[in-house]
Amino acid sequence: MSSINYNLKLKTMKSPNRRNFLKIGGVSLATIVTAPFLANASEIKKVNNIPKNLTILMQGDSITDAGRDKGRKEVNDGRGMGRGYVYQIVSSLLGAYPEEKMNFYNRGISGNKVFQLADRWDEDCMLLKPDVLSILIGVNDFWHSLRDYDGTVEKYDEDFRKLLDRTLIGYPKIKLIIGEPFAIKGGGSINEKWYPDFPKYQVAAAKIADDYKAKFIPYQQIFDEALKHAPVSYWCPDGVHPSIAGGYLMKEAWNKAFQQLF
Amino acid sequence: MSSINYNLKLKTMKSPNRRNFLKIGGVSLATIVTAPFLANASEIKKVNNIPKNLTILMQGDSITDAGRDKGRKEVNDGRGMGRGYVYQIVSSLLGAYPEEKMNFYNRGISGNKVFQLADRWDEDCMLLKPDVLSILIGVNDFWHSLRDYDGTVEKYDEDFRKLLDRTLIGYPKIKLIIGEPFAIKGGGSINEKWYPDFPKYQVAAAKIADDYKAKFIPYQQIFDEALKHAPVSYWCPDGVHPSIAGGYLMKEAWNKAFQQLF
Repeated sequence: MSSINYNLKLKTMKSPNRRNFLKIGGVSLATIVTAPFLANASEIKKVNNIPKNLTILMQGDSITDAGRDKGRKEVNDGRGMGRGYVYQIVSSLLGAYPEEKMNFYNRGISGNKVFQLADRWDEDCMLLKPDVLSILIGVNDFWHSLRDYDGTVEKYDEDFRKLLDRTLIGYPKIKLIIGEPFAIKGGGSINEKWYPDFPKYQVAAAKIADDYKAKFIPYQQIFDEALKHAPVSYWCPDGVHPSIAGGYLMKEAWNKAFQQLF
Repeated sequence: MSSINYNLKLKTMKSPNRRNFLKIGGVSLATIVTAPFLANASEIKKVNNIPKNLTILMQGDSITDAGRDKGRKEVNDGRGMGRGYVYQIVSSLLGAYPEEKMNFYNRGISGNKVFQLADRWDEDCMLLKPDVLSILIGVNDFWHSLRDYDGTVEKYDEDFRKLLDRTLIGYPKIKLIIGEPFAIKGGGSINEKWYPDFPKYQVAAAKIADDYKAKFIPYQQIFDEALKHAPVSYWCPDGVHPSIAGGYLMKEAWNKAFQQLF
């Protein structure tokens, strides 16, 4: 099933060097990561071209935050990584690549919209000197607009681009990973009010990824595929916050994107 | 390097059905799990013989506890799994095996010795009706004897066997995984007082695993091997509590043991 009203046409990635294109509403998008769902469930095939001493910053909202201990700001701190997809990424990459001496920070904060990333960007991005920046943001930009927030998809798009422009001025060689915001139908917080507007944020994120030459991770499709194997309660009970198993899906896709950056 | 004063002779596991033997002090031990260190760093190769609806109980001390939220006792609860090797196991297996509908509980409690498992065994094991029981216990049985605890390796051995006897009366078909207690030399809490006595607890655990036909996971050797790739501060800073990367080593070995149970 697909819960979004545009047509995803995905070609299969054949090699890390071959570029794929995602067609959304006629827009040809940047290299993306396909998720051959649980094909072998082999998680990491080590690659040898990852530079040493990378600093990798994970940014976003509650999905990235995932209950991290905000007093633990040190690099690679287990408690500072939360209990979500970030912890799963960090544990698998630190475990499999000890000699690469990677440096991970999680700076996701629950409830954040993209303008709130901007408010704390100096401390929570620029001063950390990231080589790789991963951003997953947007679900609150839409969701809160159903309540007391007057943001629009145009504001989301504009703020997101300003944030990336600012980042690129400081770090023109930074490598970017942008995650698609997602809403899993059947989850407790998802209802008809999410459509047709929420998918516009997904299109915006994909277009931004293309324009900024970021790896784009199509989380919506990944979760929708997973629903063939277990119900929404297994992967993402409220439709917004992944379960421990849902975090695995995200980690798998993120790790593949990461390995293709170099 | 090896920090224990007996000779580990490991044969390589060729297939899940072939039994391996670990020789410790002339004692031939049960099927064990070898850890071809980061060979391909591919984490899970899916196997198809895992029964559905398994209930899997993770028991132990602070290494198993790993800061879990003790108010979250529900099956497969992310916050209830802590931030250690258990979280890594649960996320990888729930993620890779959605159709098997596994049911995980973490009931490790920081500071526990084996007699303290016995004190809470009805509630924290028997009533959960486990199909698979994983126990990692023993470091405190030794460590606390350096301070104010009068336990001995003989008491550890006797209490551990009683606990397993009691479990097997209730669940004669239960499958057992026993982790070797470990102490990583160079870690902040490990000093000369740990030798030669601590390794006796390791020998006891291995012998118990053999006698009870449990899978035995030689964590000491796994960490000692890992020190060739990164220092103790990377894997297990205090020598007792694994880092996020150290948890990965344990998860890799545990998952292999688990897959060989069936």
